[in-house]
Amino acid sequence: MTRVGVVGATGYAGAELVRILSAHPGVKLTVLTSRRHIGERFDTIYPALAGRVDLICEKYDADSLSDATDLVFTALPHQLPMEIVPALLKRGNKVVDLSADFRFRDPDSYEKHYQPHTARGLLQQAVYGLSEVYFDDIQGADLVGNPGCYPTSALLPLIPLVKKDLLDPATLIVDAKSGVSGAGRSPSVTTLYSEVSESFKPYKVAAHRHNPEMDEVLSREAGTRVQTTFVPHLVPMSRGMQTTIYAGCTTTNRREDFHDCLQSFYNGKAFIRIRKDGSPPDTLHVRGTNYCDIGIQVDKPSNRLILMSAIDNLVKGAAGQAVQNMNIMLGLDETTGLTQMPYPL
Amino acid sequence: MTRVGVVGATGYAGAELVRILSAHPGVKLTVLTSRRHIGERFDTIYPALAGRVDLICEKYDADSLSDATDLVFTALPHQLPMEIVPALLKRGNKVVDLSADFRFRDPDSYEKHYQPHTARGLLQQAVYGLSEVYFDDIQGADLVGNPGCYPTSALLPLIPLVKKDLLDPATLIVDAKSGVSGAGRSPSVTTLYSEVSESFKPYKVAAHRHNPEMDEVLSREAGTRVQTTFVPHLVPMSRGMQTTIYAGCTTTNRREDFHDCLQSFYNGKAFIRIRKDGSPPDTLHVRGTNYCDIGIQVDKPSNRLILMSAIDNLVKGAAGQAVQNMNIMLGLDETTGLTQMPYPL
Amino acid sequence: MTRVGVVGATGYAGAELVRILSAHPGVKLTVLTSRRHIGERFDTIYPALAGRVDLICEKYDADSLSDATDLVFTALPHQLPMEIVPALLKRGNKVVDLSADFRFRDPDSYEKHYQPHTARGLLQQAVYGLSEVYFDDIQGADLVGNPGCYPTSALLPLIPLVKKDLLDPATLIVDAKSGVSGAGRSPSVTTLYSEVSESFKPYKVAAHRHNPEMDEVLSREAGTRVQTTFVPHLVPMSRGMQTTIYAGCTTTNRREDFHDCLQSFYNGKAFIRIRKDGSPPDTLHVRGTNYCDIGIQVDKPSNRLILMSAIDNLVKGAAGQAVQNMNIMLGLDETTGLTQMPYPL
Amino acid sequence: MTRVGVVGATGYAGAELVRILSAHPGVKLTVLTSRRHIGERFDTIYPALAGRVDLICEKYDADSLSDATDLVFTALPHQLPMEIVPALLKRGNKVVDLSADFRFRDPDSYEKHYQPHTARGLLQQAVYGLSEVYFDDIQGADLVGNPGCYPTSALLPLIPLVKKDLLDPATLIVDAKSGVSGAGRSPSVTTLYSEVSESFKPYKVAAHRHNPEMDEVLSREAGTRVQTTFVPHLVPMSRGMQTTIYAGCTTTNRREDFHDCLQSFYNGKAFIRIRKDGSPPDTLHVRGTNYCDIGIQVDKPSNRLILMSAIDNLVKGAAGQAVQNMNIMLGLDETTGLTQMPYPL
Repeated sequence: MTRVGVVGATGYAGAELVRILSAHPGVKLTVLTSRRHIGERFDTIYPALAGRVDLICEKYDADSLSDATDLVFTALPHQLPMEIVPALLKRGNKVVDLSADFRFRDPDSYEKHYQPHTARGLLQQAVYGLSEVYFDDIQGADLVGNPGCYPTSALLPLIPLVKKDLLDPATLIVDAKSGVSGAGRSPSVTTLYSEVSESFKPYKVAAHRHNPEMDEVLSREAGTRVQTTFVPHLVPMSRGMQTTIYAGCTTTNRREDFHDCLQSFYNGKAFIRIRKDGSPPDTLHVRGTNYCDIGIQVDKPSNRLILMSAIDNLVKGAAGQAVQNMNIMLGLDETTGLTQMPYPL
Repeated sequence: MTRVGVVGATGYAGAELVRILSAHPGVKLTVLTSRRHIGERFDTIYPALAGRVDLICEKYDADSLSDATDLVFTALPHQLPMEIVPALLKRGNKVVDLSADFRFRDPDSYEKHYQPHTARGLLQQAVYGLSEVYFDDIQGADLVGNPGCYPTSALLPLIPLVKKDLLDPATLIVDAKSGVSGAGRSPSVTTLYSEVSESFKPYKVAAHRHNPEMDEVLSREAGTRVQTTFVPHLVPMSRGMQTTIYAGCTTTNRREDFHDCLQSFYNGKAFIRIRKDGSPPDTLHVRGTNYCDIGIQVDKPSNRLILMSAIDNLVKGAAGQAVQNMNIMLGLDETTGLTQMPYPL
Repeated sequence: MTRVGVVGATGYAGAELVRILSAHPGVKLTVLTSRRHIGERFDTIYPALAGRVDLICEKYDADSLSDATDLVFTALPHQLPMEIVPALLKRGNKVVDLSADFRFRDPDSYEKHYQPHTARGLLQQAVYGLSEVYFDDIQGADLVGNPGCYPTSALLPLIPLVKKDLLDPATLIVDAKSGVSGAGRSPSVTTLYSEVSESFKPYKVAAHRHNPEMDEVLSREAGTRVQTTFVPHLVPMSRGMQTTIYAGCTTTNRREDFHDCLQSFYNGKAFIRIRKDGSPPDTLHVRGTNYCDIGIQVDKPSNRLILMSAIDNLVKGAAGQAVQNMNIMLGLDETTGLTQMPYPL
Repeated sequence: MTRVGVVGATGYAGAELVRILSAHPGVKLTVLTSRRHIGERFDTIYPALAGRVDLICEKYDADSLSDATDLVFTALPHQLPMEIVPALLKRGNKVVDLSADFRFRDPDSYEKHYQPHTARGLLQQAVYGLSEVYFDDIQGADLVGNPGCYPTSALLPLIPLVKKDLLDPATLIVDAKSGVSGAGRSPSVTTLYSEVSESFKPYKVAAHRHNPEMDEVLSREAGTRVQTTFVPHLVPMSRGMQTTIYAGCTTTNRREDFHDCLQSFYNGKAFIRIRKDGSPPDTLHVRGTNYCDIGIQVDKPSNRLILMSAIDNLVKGAAGQAVQNMNIMLGLDETTGLTQMPYPL
């Protein structure tokens, strides 16, 4: 059985990886590393998992990690993965990286928005892990750059339509809203309960680093330069991301046409649920799951399409999609380990 | 001292009116009516106000209400006010109506989106109570149609710019998010705690009745037909509304120009706070207050202006603005009774 | 494979039953009934389960239900089950009832706190479904009265200690706190989001009907009349119940002794997690699971034991324990279908 | 007009002091100090107060502070105030300290639970600022030790009854629940939104330092050694504290007797609201106010009194009571600046 490890297991995305991988029937979770909790049992940090996970968090060490695993998830802040991933690949490990370090094909774009890239050579080799869209490439990949949560929520509804030229690429506006867990587990005033409760606000307005990420992918798929206007907002809730997208229609403004295009593109894809009646998706309906729910409406007077998506930012927006990518890389059914029943509330 | 009454005092907007008017130094609150709580003390329904309000809720009766008041707030679901307001006006009462019944100048538009209007003749006489914008008209009004919460949050940032032709009227998109109290106090599954918590979702997508309301006002101010795309969303919080507006720039895309235009238009207006550095407004910062905080950013690559506003949907979006309108109608300083200190958290 | 049905499937406890039973490997869910949603697909009421549950809600009919099922869960308000359960039992169905109707052995006690009982004869036959404690009786039962959420949270930590006379039965105080989903899905002002948010309050102080339920069981186990003081509180959260219990010590006040007694009693019981270091249980750690986490502290100066438990009120406090009881009745491993991984947050 | 300063103005209690004092008609707020935000405008840290507070946070300096103020509030973590208060008193300032440093009369008790006390001599001079109870002493005080939030919530209902020997002092159990703002504004994992939401839990079980504080006061008032069992809990909400107290009755178990005793003790006290019908107090009803709402029930079968209180932990539990104490020290009406209307929701 494939042995897997999680580097950065005690952050929120890391902990979700641990949850999913511990119950995954096709792999064995063998190593957890953490910078803050070396030597501590994972279930003392996340007592929800007491009785279910008995691993102890270790200090990161390339050799011992590589020896004990076949595939590694790196769930670290950007800049750290590019320092360790090359060594893991050399040792023969496959890697799914959840940071931004291997999401860009264009190293200049990465460097403009993040920092100098010390493993530029890997960017051409890395596959962008938007599972449903790049399934074929992921199958053969040794290194997957797992997409950001916002790009996942925007690209899944947009790509099929952009590929068919159903949207005017100059008109794309992405208004996205995320639960607070997206900001991670590092202590910070801005994510304290008393600062978040009853607070709804935009942030990094037209300045978020997920913007160039989604623009690079959209441009590739559209075959033309796409520059979306992107405004993220913070929602007083723990998990969930809802994105509302506005786009000018081109050849059609019939809701059914957009629905059919999406339905056809995602035919047979278990995690994409297109709402038949156009009714809006709701973060509560995808909480804790790997689903991406998509709703479609047309504002006829303005000839604008309104696309709406809902995902769990920690699952389809991070750990869930990462495991889905692992499944694809390993030749497993892509839903393996990800079919836990959703909660009705 | 002017005697005032609140019809529909036990709904959320009504209760906010009671809170503000009870402490208002320029008027005396004399009558509360309620359909559900006839004969009950108001402070048994809202125990927060025990020791502060000793009025008993009465059944609505035009004669006794009119005798006991000079000015009446009607905080009822639409359709009811148009049945009772004519009688109150005839008896010499001034009226501030918080429903949609007197917000439209065009009766056909009202009837298209609501129902037949039984007091069409009053629509020309009624003044749209967007306090900062229509101050002069409100001064002489006997009947004010208090704006909807969504229109208030969108019109305050938009009107000054639209009047100066700084925005392309064909490009307006209003993406708005409201706390749950906007749905009122009537029992309903959709506003139960367990349905709202961890739930963020669009609703009435491009189909909300506040859309024609804001379009009528914008069209008037722009001097041309404006049709905004409007998508409201429900936020898991009690109070607050944040609206993000996207608009194509025309003659300028310098942030400072938009800032100056707004600053100049609202110069001396106590409840409009334009954030100097463009930093986004936050519902938490206006909670319980009559403020409208406005933020401005430009997305240069797409030549789009991003306007952001935050209000408390029950205060500036309802009861607070209604009292502000009363102040203007009575010749009081418009801030009277509305200067309670905001909470830092 | 055993065929099961859920009567009252669209309430919160019913929906949780549907979630668990749909993925249960040992039974087949064949019938859902609902009073409000006859003819509607279950997944239109709970869209989280779209793609996972395709059943349509039916009107309750004893004959057709009985024909299509071997075991029935009744998730209805009390008073309704006692009207339908006798017929189901006669037709040969086994029944797990989630209401209070079959929890009492003493019909007078039931009638004092609820209403006249129309199936008194079944009370001696029914088994109180506190799974870990009455496992043996449940094995042979045709009718299980599933415990209330509060009694479950109080009895699991108390019973082993009471049986060993480690607590003074005259001193028991149960201070319990529940999330709002416990109040169900019926529309009501008191459970609206805006009434619950930022609201923490006691209710039914020393007057809740779960009090006689827990007292009857405790008295039986203690071999003496026990009358606990019981105060429930409402917490601004959706799911979860935390109970803090105060009791005078008798023969020992060493924390280890209480720990050992509980550990020994629940040895091998997968859903009872006794926290080794006495650290307090947290509702977040049991959310969505069938666990009961138990913490133990002693206040030496007052010679008082402090017991703390945490459960999910809808799972171990309702649907989860009901399925656990079904497993026991059917001779399956009691954890079958209940081992979904907990979420770390 | 009396000039006042706030040392530690950017913590939550400090910010509430700023809110109240900025609008206080009897004093002038002249100085704010902060350790983290030196040189920053207060309203950039708390933008809610933009347009209302224009002070800049300064570095603490005893001389300049003393010159610019007559009375100082110290809102710092314990241990810091005892280092600076002596100097302020020597310079002639009056001081209200919100930490634990001047709450204890017995220095050994303080040192046992906190750390060595470097200003032991002031403990006899300091007055415990439970405003309604120690009004007379506060009038003449130069130094007030402002009570902890938990002791305030427990002592206000208990003291009148303890003084009249209506409660058995050996039986007191205080089960208290606090909103998260009580933990302050320092970044910490435990108060992150995602850790708090859906989490209800006890903490510092029978080990919280507010326990000896309340016991010292209760023992003094009872004239006998009182040792309460005290368990605090954390509630997923921002503000508010609800405390449920259990006590054995002595000479009476009639609810009316307890009610009369409390009513008589607090006769004319504006901030104590005793609920006539025994209905439970609710944190939502006191949010943002200086009220302490008190409910009373008797559990006759066990002969136990159940006292319930609700306060806002940041107002009556901290800043509000501190200002109330200032009012008393300055000979102002004790409600001055504290009569802002409560919000109905």
